[in-house]
Amino acid sequence: MERAGDVAVIGAGLIGLGIAFELASRGATVRVYERGEPARAASWAGAGMLAPYSESTGDEQMLALGAQSLSRYPEFVDRVRAASGIDPHLHLDGIVSAAFDEERLRELRAHAQALARRGVDCELLDRESTLAAEPALARTVLGALLRRSEGYVDNRRLGRALVAACEAKGVTIVRSATDVAVEADARRVLGVRSHLGFTPASYVVVAAGAWSASVPGIPTQFAPAVRPVKGQMLALAAPVGFLKRTTWIPGAYLVPREDGRLLVGATMEDAGFDERVTGSGLRTLLDAVHMGAPSLLDFAVTEVWAGLRPGTPDGRPLIGPTPIEGLILATGHYRNGILLTPVTAAYVADCIERGDAEALAPWLRMTTA
Amino acid sequence: MERAGDVAVIGAGLIGLGIAFELASRGATVRVYERGEPARAASWAGAGMLAPYSESTGDEQMLALGAQSLSRYPEFVDRVRAASGIDPHLHLDGIVSAAFDEERLRELRAHAQALARRGVDCELLDRESTLAAEPALARTVLGALLRRSEGYVDNRRLGRALVAACEAKGVTIVRSATDVAVEADARRVLGVRSHLGFTPASYVVVAAGAWSASVPGIPTQFAPAVRPVKGQMLALAAPVGFLKRTTWIPGAYLVPREDGRLLVGATMEDAGFDERVTGSGLRTLLDAVHMGAPSLLDFAVTEVWAGLRPGTPDGRPLIGPTPIEGLILATGHYRNGILLTPVTAAYVADCIERGDAEALAPWLRMTTA
Repeated sequence: MERAGDVAVIGAGLIGLGIAFELASRGATVRVYERGEPARAASWAGAGMLAPYSESTGDEQMLALGAQSLSRYPEFVDRVRAASGIDPHLHLDGIVSAAFDEERLRELRAHAQALARRGVDCELLDRESTLAAEPALARTVLGALLRRSEGYVDNRRLGRALVAACEAKGVTIVRSATDVAVEADARRVLGVRSHLGFTPASYVVVAAGAWSASVPGIPTQFAPAVRPVKGQMLALAAPVGFLKRTTWIPGAYLVPREDGRLLVGATMEDAGFDERVTGSGLRTLLDAVHMGAPSLLDFAVTEVWAGLRPGTPDGRPLIGPTPIEGLILATGHYRNGILLTPVTAAYVADCIERGDAEALAPWLRMTTA
Repeated sequence: MERAGDVAVIGAGLIGLGIAFELASRGATVRVYERGEPARAASWAGAGMLAPYSESTGDEQMLALGAQSLSRYPEFVDRVRAASGIDPHLHLDGIVSAAFDEERLRELRAHAQALARRGVDCELLDRESTLAAEPALARTVLGALLRRSEGYVDNRRLGRALVAACEAKGVTIVRSATDVAVEADARRVLGVRSHLGFTPASYVVVAAGAWSASVPGIPTQFAPAVRPVKGQMLALAAPVGFLKRTTWIPGAYLVPREDGRLLVGATMEDAGFDERVTGSGLRTLLDAVHMGAPSLLDFAVTEVWAGLRPGTPDGRPLIGPTPIEGLILATGHYRNGILLTPVTAAYVADCIERGDAEALAPWLRMTTA
């Protein structure tokens, strides 16, 4: 991998670590710079849903990108597990979207038809089958759509696994006591500046999630238009298997974990860099559970937290080379950063390794801050 | 204080520590035995409301006991502060009961008349004055009753202060690694058994709150009929003074703290010794705040917790000597343990010092477990 030279990645979230792991697996020399803790922020705060179909907003290119990343997940996780010895708990056993009114039921029927045309494995469940599949749902449920190929990964485990996998592949993770800055001239990138001073690099990848717009040193006209979209969540201590699959109820989603923890998420708030858990955030989630799966509320609330998604004006990520030679963006993944980690890692590695940015064309908008 | 001899108190909650402080101040030799941490459990979990009138259930003798304890509070806190150097933050600046429907408004009018006849300082507030007094209340409020002599004490500070005050007065607080047992023969108490072995005592005071019924060694027929009544609470980080006074809204109460924290309590649950914070518990509290003071929900939820009140069948505490000579109960204070600490401490000390149990007559029922 001669063309690559040294790569610096700014941001040790799943996206940055995924890219570093991919590049290092292909032989590149990679340093990841992180101002905080590796694999924290949104990578830690998310629920790990792998749901390109359930999350679809009608953007066909996003749907295709998500579907492609989902199809890469098993192999990606296998490689991360093999390199790290840590199992990220990938579960592709389906996601249930439950309907509690006729309108939602009609929507789910339309989704099912569209997915069937696409060849996606899904099934409409009547009321009885829905309650048989997920007995925790309220008796008022009318039906559900089961998308069999979706699921979840334990994103906190995946984060720990990626840190270990990167280290196993020779990636250096630099925890900087100061903000990490891009160094560039008008034409090309020179390296990064951290608490260690200046370190040259042939490529600098900005993967700083919600903080990407404020990474120092990115020329203003190319700074990515990423803004934080706050999400609040909570965890309930349910018995293992009480909820069988990741389930959407009106106003919230429920994501199981192998240890029985059950994640409830998530609010969508335009609140700047505020990461507080608020009364209204918790109330929104608990009210949704009360409506959709009330028996869950008898379990202990063992954790509450919030995270910041990196949102963009058009809802699409910003992935690919900027006009500054060697300066590459990999940010703005919004609600889909965990899902899009494998495909982003592969595309950015291809782009650096082979100068191949073709696959990145839809994601190369200059939507700047 | 010759008659007293050595006193052992089982339970280092506010009641046990208050009794120990009172007795030690009068010259007795006192040991307090605690299986867990001193000044924790319900003494730590409560909100510290001092509200004999707002909490009244119509039991005139309870009202009189609460009013008497309230009147003793300033002098009690002065002595604790002087002995410990810790200010328990006593605020007797009134409690507001807000009405959101006509029925509640009529009730508050009747309360106001009854309190006026009793000479208790209170005031009915119309809608405008209510919102002027507490701008955090929902605009849907119809009016309120302000009971001027009520208020709150910071019970966690009072707990720390009482520990220090007890130590300053020479009380020994024994943290036992095992359950602390009463040792008695058929006629009289002999002492206590802890991880230190047997320690003789002339008097043993059982002040173990919700755990009082299961203190080993109490003859079965005299074991107090105390059962845990779970309460869940949460704290919001509001600016100092955002809520001015302790305020009742439908389904919850709001208690300020000098540091701006705002306590929201409390559920009432028959759940055994379960101290988990549950989804339904938090939802109940947050829904009440949403109805009564919705702007508070924008603040951060900084803490959630639960505690166990020592409930009794008739709602009255169990205070005073048992037929086993020297074995004294001071438990079953239910929702009023913090309020009743000064009067309980004084009555039990009088009972031990002077054999004077007259004031305790109403509280000497043999309601056993």
